[in-house]
Amino acid sequence: MKTPGYDDLAAHYTRLHHFQHLGSIVGWDQAANMPPKGNEARAAALAELAALMHRLRTDGSLSERIARAEQEPLTEHQRANLREIRRDWQQANALPTELVQRRQMATSRCEHAWRTLRPANDWAGFVEQWKPVLAIAREEAALLSQQTGLAKYDALMDRFEPGMTSATVDRVFGAVRQWLPGLIQRVIDKQSREPVLEPVGPFAIDKQRALCQAMVRRLGFDFEAGRLDTSTHPFSGGVPEDVRMTTRYREDEFLPALMGTVHETGHGRYEQNRPRDWLGQPVSEARSMAIHESQSLSFEMQLGGHPGFAHVLAPMLVEAFGGQHAFEPGNLHRLLTRVKRGLIRVDADEVTYPAHVILRYEIERPMIEGQIQAEDVPALWDQKMAELLGLDTRGNYKDGPLQDVHWPESLFGYFPCYSLGAMYAAQWSAAMHRAMPDLDGRIASGDWAPMFDWLRDNIWSQASRWTTDELAIRASGEVLNPAFFKAHLEARYLG
Amino acid sequence: MKTPGYDDLAAHYTRLHHFQHLGSIVGWDQAANMPPKGNEARAAALAELAALMHRLRTDGSLSERIARAEQEPLTEHQRANLREIRRDWQQANALPTELVQRRQMATSRCEHAWRTLRPANDWAGFVEQWKPVLAIAREEAALLSQQTGLAKYDALMDRFEPGMTSATVDRVFGAVRQWLPGLIQRVIDKQSREPVLEPVGPFAIDKQRALCQAMVRRLGFDFEAGRLDTSTHPFSGGVPEDVRMTTRYREDEFLPALMGTVHETGHGRYEQNRPRDWLGQPVSEARSMAIHESQSLSFEMQLGGHPGFAHVLAPMLVEAFGGQHAFEPGNLHRLLTRVKRGLIRVDADEVTYPAHVILRYEIERPMIEGQIQAEDVPALWDQKMAELLGLDTRGNYKDGPLQDVHWPESLFGYFPCYSLGAMYAAQWSAAMHRAMPDLDGRIASGDWAPMFDWLRDNIWSQASRWTTDELAIRASGEVLNPAFFKAHLEARYLG
Repeated sequence: MKTPGYDDLAAHYTRLHHFQHLGSIVGWDQAANMPPKGNEARAAALAELAALMHRLRTDGSLSERIARAEQEPLTEHQRANLREIRRDWQQANALPTELVQRRQMATSRCEHAWRTLRPANDWAGFVEQWKPVLAIAREEAALLSQQTGLAKYDALMDRFEPGMTSATVDRVFGAVRQWLPGLIQRVIDKQSREPVLEPVGPFAIDKQRALCQAMVRRLGFDFEAGRLDTSTHPFSGGVPEDVRMTTRYREDEFLPALMGTVHETGHGRYEQNRPRDWLGQPVSEARSMAIHESQSLSFEMQLGGHPGFAHVLAPMLVEAFGGQHAFEPGNLHRLLTRVKRGLIRVDADEVTYPAHVILRYEIERPMIEGQIQAEDVPALWDQKMAELLGLDTRGNYKDGPLQDVHWPESLFGYFPCYSLGAMYAAQWSAAMHRAMPDLDGRIASGDWAPMFDWLRDNIWSQASRWTTDELAIRASGEVLNPAFFKAHLEARYLG
Repeated sequence: MKTPGYDDLAAHYTRLHHFQHLGSIVGWDQAANMPPKGNEARAAALAELAALMHRLRTDGSLSERIARAEQEPLTEHQRANLREIRRDWQQANALPTELVQRRQMATSRCEHAWRTLRPANDWAGFVEQWKPVLAIAREEAALLSQQTGLAKYDALMDRFEPGMTSATVDRVFGAVRQWLPGLIQRVIDKQSREPVLEPVGPFAIDKQRALCQAMVRRLGFDFEAGRLDTSTHPFSGGVPEDVRMTTRYREDEFLPALMGTVHETGHGRYEQNRPRDWLGQPVSEARSMAIHESQSLSFEMQLGGHPGFAHVLAPMLVEAFGGQHAFEPGNLHRLLTRVKRGLIRVDADEVTYPAHVILRYEIERPMIEGQIQAEDVPALWDQKMAELLGLDTRGNYKDGPLQDVHWPESLFGYFPCYSLGAMYAAQWSAAMHRAMPDLDGRIASGDWAPMFDWLRDNIWSQASRWTTDELAIRASGEVLNPAFFKAHLEARYLG
């Protein structure tokens, strides 16, 4: 069947993909390599690229070209691609180029300033840089809301999590908010009767780096098609053929760097295993950010908190740092599942983690909707930290609202994806246990392949072929069901 | 004065500069970081960028826009920029896209084949791949010659060294050819009576890396605006605000990595000190390849071969590798100025280096002009190696005409820049000694700032404001005069 209209569109998206490739690598470089004086020129160059890509995505002829392709006799895969192309087109056309460029400049500047203002605990200095970012985000939310008919915050969230609404998030997070503080308390009480030995440092950075590389390899990441480097805020970037993961090291502890790396490896394997035949087309993109997080959390939490993980890790630690009683597998497992109320989201365990996300969601949603202002954030932060985790954060901005890169980068609507991802991860785990009743035994024996294979077949290789709900149904028999997450926490931490 | 035509052109070139920025960083990444499986996608992304930039540089409206700007009341600086813009436009528009594409295909194939044919010493196999490259280069030379009125070889050389002609090169190299073999013999005789101790390895890579970083800092490179990393082939890239230099390390010797780094630092400081006010405009670009080489060689050869360099280096070596008799400053200086006839250009010292360049020039020029053929190269190579360096290379293609990547990549006309750069470096050195009679004493005492300041004021900050001849006259009172190079070699090696 001839499909000239579709083919023409696909070629257009391949071009876009090439520019996306350049932006990904340069963006990674900005975080992992760029010296400080390079920032202004880099921001200008990336703004130019963003403007070019925006022009390509909003080309006046696209509307007609998409409509023409939609009339052609397409395969199911091509039709899914066309659905994603239309979605991309709608998103891109919601915003004028001028706004996209302004956003790029503002976020680049703010993110750069944040790197020094955070360690300086300088909230007042940060707010000055952040206000333009927030003003542009509200403008953006209003425009997207007009176009899509979604509420303002939902319109921003839809960029990361297509189809997700704050009504659903409210329902899910509202329920979690009810049972979470009590669950945390019960777990902490239980664990207080289970002593755990802390590993004794220092842990040389080069040994940690080698350990992380070895673990990444053990998790099946292909180093011929990717790297692991260092950056202030760990992330996963690059392109499927060349995935760039980062982590950060401290001499006094190795677990944050290691488990951060395990987390990024979940993202990395998803990217490396997106369907090759469709690379460059929107249908080959990862389904959504929550689905992406469900992969990193399948690695970090579902696998990392499994007793089988500690068994594999124990000898690797002895090799890296020499023997310690703390490296005994049972103790290691207790360490890896230790629940502790803390200030830092990225260091949180899987039980307290949703508290950090709910807090951010409850602040950023009214902020985008204009009900609260940037200056209100610290007081709200303190109040919600007290409610959800019983912690006092007054005056500690660097471990409070300055701790994440998301707000400087205008990634409003992103935070919910982390906890939705944790819920999907629990749902996938339940599904794979149903499909493979001996799975726990195999993971315990160090055979992690069945888990990776299930994820590859059901999630990675499916990319954006289906909507998120369809993907969840095909993989697990139902749409998002947070009951699996609660059951998982109770079984692992109170069982 | 209003200059709307000029302003419009300048904005166009600023855009180009932003894309150039992305290409530079991604190109550096390709050499320094990219894992093997990333290659195909990276090549496609860079080809997309190259096509975009070519379209921008050949935009049909540019001819008229340049002509319009030329009618405006411009400052001297703007007029210099417009001269460089016209030059860039002429270069970009000189060749039909079809030829550029054919050249790309042929050089890619030939370069790829060369990587295995060189180690296999397979000249016959190479010639088959090289003939199409040569045929296209002749076509290109003929087209450029028609357009510019220059001789064919000169038209190719003009891409790297604007304004340089083979008449000048003939005169300069012809003279060098007369005195060089005799000078080399006298230096080698003299040095045979001055024993030198070789440093004893191994030299740990991380110590070498720290040593190179410290030396780069000592040479005034700003690490807040650049980096030093590792790649298979050392180079200097990036952008003025973020210069990316690379070197390569071997455990058994440290001098090649160190002096390669000193060389790249000369390039790097030139780039870092191009005039800030004009960044993004062609007038802010480095003047030419010979002027660029004159900077790297001012660092590597003029400074590196000065006794004051060994005095600074000696304690750094002791700190890096522990004490050795070979690290005594006098011995170190003898090591750094050791002259030896060898087959490989990139390993040559400053005395024998011109022999390698003259040989290549005397072959590639008549080859481009059609007087000799690809098959004639090995016999000519052998004959000239015997004449210039007294070495026998018969049958040794891999250390003979197969040793450089320039010919497979069709970089005909580039080789002369290396030795012209060495001559300019000697000319700058003479000029700064005239201006600062105590310069040798200051360099000997470790105070290198006067040398760097002179280069910054006379070369780096001038960028492309003047033609090369004007630049040389302003900096040193005259156009290129190879007598300074001869005097430098005689003073340093026979004095």
